[in-house]
Amino acid sequence: MKTLLKAVTALLLSTVAIADEGMWTLDNFPHATVQEKYGVEITDDWLQTVKRSVARLDGGCSASFISANGLLLTNHHCAISCIAQNSSADNDLEALGFVARNTDEELRCTADRVSVLMETEEITTRVVDALGRRTGKDAGDARRRILKRIVEECELTSGFKCESVSLYQGGQYWLYKFHRYDDVRLVFAPESDIASFGGDPDNFNFPRWCLDMTLLRVYQNDEPLATPDFLRWRSKGLKPGELMLIAGRPGSSQRLLTVTDLKFLRDVTIPQWLIRASELRGRYIQFADSGDEAFRIVQVPLQRIENGIKVMRKRLDALHDDNMMADKDAAERRLKAQVAANPNLAREVGSAWDDIRIANETYANFRDEYYFIELGYAFGGRLFGYARSLIRAAAERDKPNAMRLDEYTVDKMPRRQQLTLAARPVYPELEILQLSFSLDKMREYLGPDSHYVHTILGAKTPRAAAEALVTGTKLADPDLRASLWEADLEEIEASGDPMIQLALAIDDEARALRKRYEDEVDAPSDLAYEKIANARFAIEGSSSYPDATFTLRVSYGAHEGWIEKGEPVRPYTTLAELYPRVTGQSPFQLPASWSNVEEKLPADTKFNFVGTTDVIGGNSGSPVIDSAGRLVGLVFDGNIHSISGAYWFDAERNRTVNVHPEIMLEALDKLYDADHLIDELTLVD
Amino acid sequence: MKTLLKAVTALLLSTVAIADEGMWTLDNFPHATVQEKYGVEITDDWLQTVKRSVARLDGGCSASFISANGLLLTNHHCAISCIAQNSSADNDLEALGFVARNTDEELRCTADRVSVLMETEEITTRVVDALGRRTGKDAGDARRRILKRIVEECELTSGFKCESVSLYQGGQYWLYKFHRYDDVRLVFAPESDIASFGGDPDNFNFPRWCLDMTLLRVYQNDEPLATPDFLRWRSKGLKPGELMLIAGRPGSSQRLLTVTDLKFLRDVTIPQWLIRASELRGRYIQFADSGDEAFRIVQVPLQRIENGIKVMRKRLDALHDDNMMADKDAAERRLKAQVAANPNLAREVGSAWDDIRIANETYANFRDEYYFIELGYAFGGRLFGYARSLIRAAAERDKPNAMRLDEYTVDKMPRRQQLTLAARPVYPELEILQLSFSLDKMREYLGPDSHYVHTILGAKTPRAAAEALVTGTKLADPDLRASLWEADLEEIEASGDPMIQLALAIDDEARALRKRYEDEVDAPSDLAYEKIANARFAIEGSSSYPDATFTLRVSYGAHEGWIEKGEPVRPYTTLAELYPRVTGQSPFQLPASWSNVEEKLPADTKFNFVGTTDVIGGNSGSPVIDSAGRLVGLVFDGNIHSISGAYWFDAERNRTVNVHPEIMLEALDKLYDADHLIDELTLVD
Repeated sequence: MKTLLKAVTALLLSTVAIADEGMWTLDNFPHATVQEKYGVEITDDWLQTVKRSVARLDGGCSASFISANGLLLTNHHCAISCIAQNSSADNDLEALGFVARNTDEELRCTADRVSVLMETEEITTRVVDALGRRTGKDAGDARRRILKRIVEECELTSGFKCESVSLYQGGQYWLYKFHRYDDVRLVFAPESDIASFGGDPDNFNFPRWCLDMTLLRVYQNDEPLATPDFLRWRSKGLKPGELMLIAGRPGSSQRLLTVTDLKFLRDVTIPQWLIRASELRGRYIQFADSGDEAFRIVQVPLQRIENGIKVMRKRLDALHDDNMMADKDAAERRLKAQVAANPNLAREVGSAWDDIRIANETYANFRDEYYFIELGYAFGGRLFGYARSLIRAAAERDKPNAMRLDEYTVDKMPRRQQLTLAARPVYPELEILQLSFSLDKMREYLGPDSHYVHTILGAKTPRAAAEALVTGTKLADPDLRASLWEADLEEIEASGDPMIQLALAIDDEARALRKRYEDEVDAPSDLAYEKIANARFAIEGSSSYPDATFTLRVSYGAHEGWIEKGEPVRPYTTLAELYPRVTGQSPFQLPASWSNVEEKLPADTKFNFVGTTDVIGGNSGSPVIDSAGRLVGLVFDGNIHSISGAYWFDAERNRTVNVHPEIMLEALDKLYDADHLIDELTLVD
Repeated sequence: MKTLLKAVTALLLSTVAIADEGMWTLDNFPHATVQEKYGVEITDDWLQTVKRSVARLDGGCSASFISANGLLLTNHHCAISCIAQNSSADNDLEALGFVARNTDEELRCTADRVSVLMETEEITTRVVDALGRRTGKDAGDARRRILKRIVEECELTSGFKCESVSLYQGGQYWLYKFHRYDDVRLVFAPESDIASFGGDPDNFNFPRWCLDMTLLRVYQNDEPLATPDFLRWRSKGLKPGELMLIAGRPGSSQRLLTVTDLKFLRDVTIPQWLIRASELRGRYIQFADSGDEAFRIVQVPLQRIENGIKVMRKRLDALHDDNMMADKDAAERRLKAQVAANPNLAREVGSAWDDIRIANETYANFRDEYYFIELGYAFGGRLFGYARSLIRAAAERDKPNAMRLDEYTVDKMPRRQQLTLAARPVYPELEILQLSFSLDKMREYLGPDSHYVHTILGAKTPRAAAEALVTGTKLADPDLRASLWEADLEEIEASGDPMIQLALAIDDEARALRKRYEDEVDAPSDLAYEKIANARFAIEGSSSYPDATFTLRVSYGAHEGWIEKGEPVRPYTTLAELYPRVTGQSPFQLPASWSNVEEKLPADTKFNFVGTTDVIGGNSGSPVIDSAGRLVGLVFDGNIHSISGAYWFDAERNRTVNVHPEIMLEALDKLYDADHLIDELTLVD
């Protein structure tokens, strides 16, 4: 009986329509399911228009165009680096907020870049043909080469910026073609106190009252970009129960991982990450206590790590849900049995699941070294990254494109250059904290007798080494970085800069660790996942959606609450409910512009709201859109149950948390005196 | 075949003699096994003499008498609180070390207490009779009452200090009778640089070079205690392969836990502990960076938490060893099957395993509240503890002994008083750090809407609340605490001290959480474990040893190394091998007294050594003894494989790490000029 029940449950779960589950690619949107459940047709035209109206912030967020002049709506927390880089002790835009009174006052975000997807093209066949019968390391090398070649060819011939995309864990390969803009400017930002009201305690919670919005503007040739495709605003937002859609870039999910890989996350990756991040969090908080300026400059990294800790703690809880893990295990066994029952499939898939397990076991032998030395976990802060980018760019530039490290190919070099040369403040005390912390962790994990540790620290303590490197290097100077970017490797080396010397001293070994990872872990694992994905296509068809990969997806659902501990949660909050939560102390205090807000805005102004849509980190800044294509909200978070969405969709309780258009418009109008921005919008109630 | 192999393996493992496994009580020492394996008879006389020669440091360590005048040998890290309390910025005994030139110069350790076990008496029958057929909450209450009554009666009639002891998870109850001394003084301590050479990086590692020793002296009536039973020194130590025995107080092991409880540790308790402790570690390290005095005062808590993190990380790794967990699971299934096959046993054991699972599930509903509010995780630092001790002592003092909270019974009140009144330095900045950290975690885990959080913080931030409490309270003053200790509850309340107000404000709720824990978690779980223990006795007899409980145990083994990654580890280190590891930077630097050490001491002086004995935290400071009863070493650590010893004994690789008598004697003689102390010893090579 129990077994039968399980099978029925599995069937129900696989009928994803019922659960509003899925982050769908545009070519495979479940039109019929949505039509059936919500009685609304989402046409291909709707999807194509939305596609051109939404943008990717290449730092890791989503956004949407809301005027014909390149005005972008995204989250405050998505623009926080830009806001911080334009702040100083005297003019702290995080604390004070910012309104540009005209385009002249708009502030450059030097490290930001915006991409707008224009076309997609499937290239699975080309990749599969290029791989032929190769396996292991050879397959990995061949795949990297063909993907680089396709991208290079695309950029030379199409007039677009191009990226290769892997979907369904390698089941499909696509070429995505973009318009790309690296001149982005800050137009409007509220104060942090209201953008992230409730701070870390309320993060991932609901009810909420966060005006987590920012307006940016995209420029081209020093003029606001003309954006004929943009979203009109439906000022009053959604009706309860109404269909809502979200278009954006969910960053990364692991719903198609094997049970072996899920357990590796649960037992190794996540606990280690949490232990490390928690210690760094403690250092940041104590550093913040040392003075007002320390407090200010540490806010961005502190908030980032606190958000990460909350996510990872809940993911760990999710992976400890033995029922969910048992379901994963049962589904995997079913798929294996179906493969085994089909001789053709069985031959193609071979030992894929074992291959993944073996790749993990191999990885365990050098994982710490790979993390610290090649992935850079030993080298916290910005300065080492500059040094490595400079020497690697110089080394890779002269190689044929297909032979370069992935992040230095012809198509990726401009972004690498932008990130390396962008004038961003470097705070020596914070750099010393981050670098000494990470050197200390390196020594702890690799052990004091590791030859990497000897090479990097010599007889110095981590703190002394970090101080010497940070005070000795000149790489904080963007002009110096710009001149070294033009230099060749010998010239860079001749600079004698200690951070560059360090990057050079370990570069051969770091590259060797990377090659080992690519050959012994990535290559066999990728190939195995491709085989499993193909088996799944063969058995289930393409009725499902691929894991999130920071590519454009559309999710759908209803504007609805959920049941928490037996009590229904109303799907929206109003302004009046905010006041009782204000303590006057961070993170529960209102900024000055909100004084007497109760006299300026209607008490029933809707503030934040939720829906059953399936989103994940990276969707931050996505527009919520109604079936008529109007903007009805701004995604900024998920509820606490959304965090398990990395591994499975909890249809009962996973909810997207959004800013309501009412509070955005009211605040711009009456609190920030930004009529000129409202005038730029199109309100179409 | 596989099943058969497993059964054979299980048989081998249960023949503990082969594995040198076990922390044995004196009444159940495996004389025959040792005789058979090592050809040596360990007599009851040997055990009784050793019993009176070893002492318990009630803070959580072991020690041994090494002269007739109360001279005690233990670890530097066991005396670190005493050393720190006698230190100041001008005279930092941790950094500088300490040698008392005569008894007048010996320094009082105000918070230390030493207990010497004189007699033991089994009281299982009395406890079982008192419980009768009670279950759940009633059984818990009855057990607590009868144990308090037996202890009170013992103290009134025997002339000893008495403690009740539960062994085999409640399978046996014992009365332990002690001589007890609360005047303990510091005689000799080396510098931290050599006591813990290698610091956290080398902690739990071997080869090692740590002079982790301290000499204390026990006083009675202001005179050195006469200790006719003490250990003579065998200056040259053990021969390779020779039998070694360790007598001390292993603190706590969980080898008899059910699989359910092991998984709860793995999935909940340990990860949460690690995340919390790592953040606190980060705060300590960053605080240490803020100045020399901050660095000095944070060393003791920092080292404690780093040690804990290392232990917990390795325990988590151990619990992720799926093979070991499968063995535990198989053993539990075997026991269950044996119980089920015997109708009498089946009736007695009933639903014990399910009861433990249900108790865990119940616990999950209020575990965070219980931790933060009653166990005090919300109230870091010393000051809140003083406040709670004062108000609870006043409240409990007037109750009948059997009705008091466990730690305020007649027998325990003197220790509570000593700990509350001991004059120890209180550093406001450190207290603010610890209290604000723990209040912050409380808010994070209970949520900003918890009524506990409202009661404790009001509208304040954790940092502001901590500052107000620490700067407002007068409880840092030991004289004030002494006067309040004599006061009744109304007088204490009238003091208006803010920390006392806080302790009072939440005391009813804290006690309610404790009662709920005792009734709903502890009571059913204890009863279930007793039933399982009795079933185990019925099936296996008493051929095994109980889990460690900080009671006196003797372990045995051989002076032998192990195989690490295919390479044999030599079982001892010599002085000459130390020099190449000295970098001149902490934690790899030598103190001033060790300058030119290579000219003063023989290069081949043995430094640290290992053996196959089964020990665990709490054994720190235990003497290593040969079959003739001579001191041949001082336990101070285990190797990295010893940490899994919490759950199972890894016979191949678990090794005890000890200080060799050669380096102790040579250093006292030639580096510390402490001939007067050597003269007090008896060397009997």
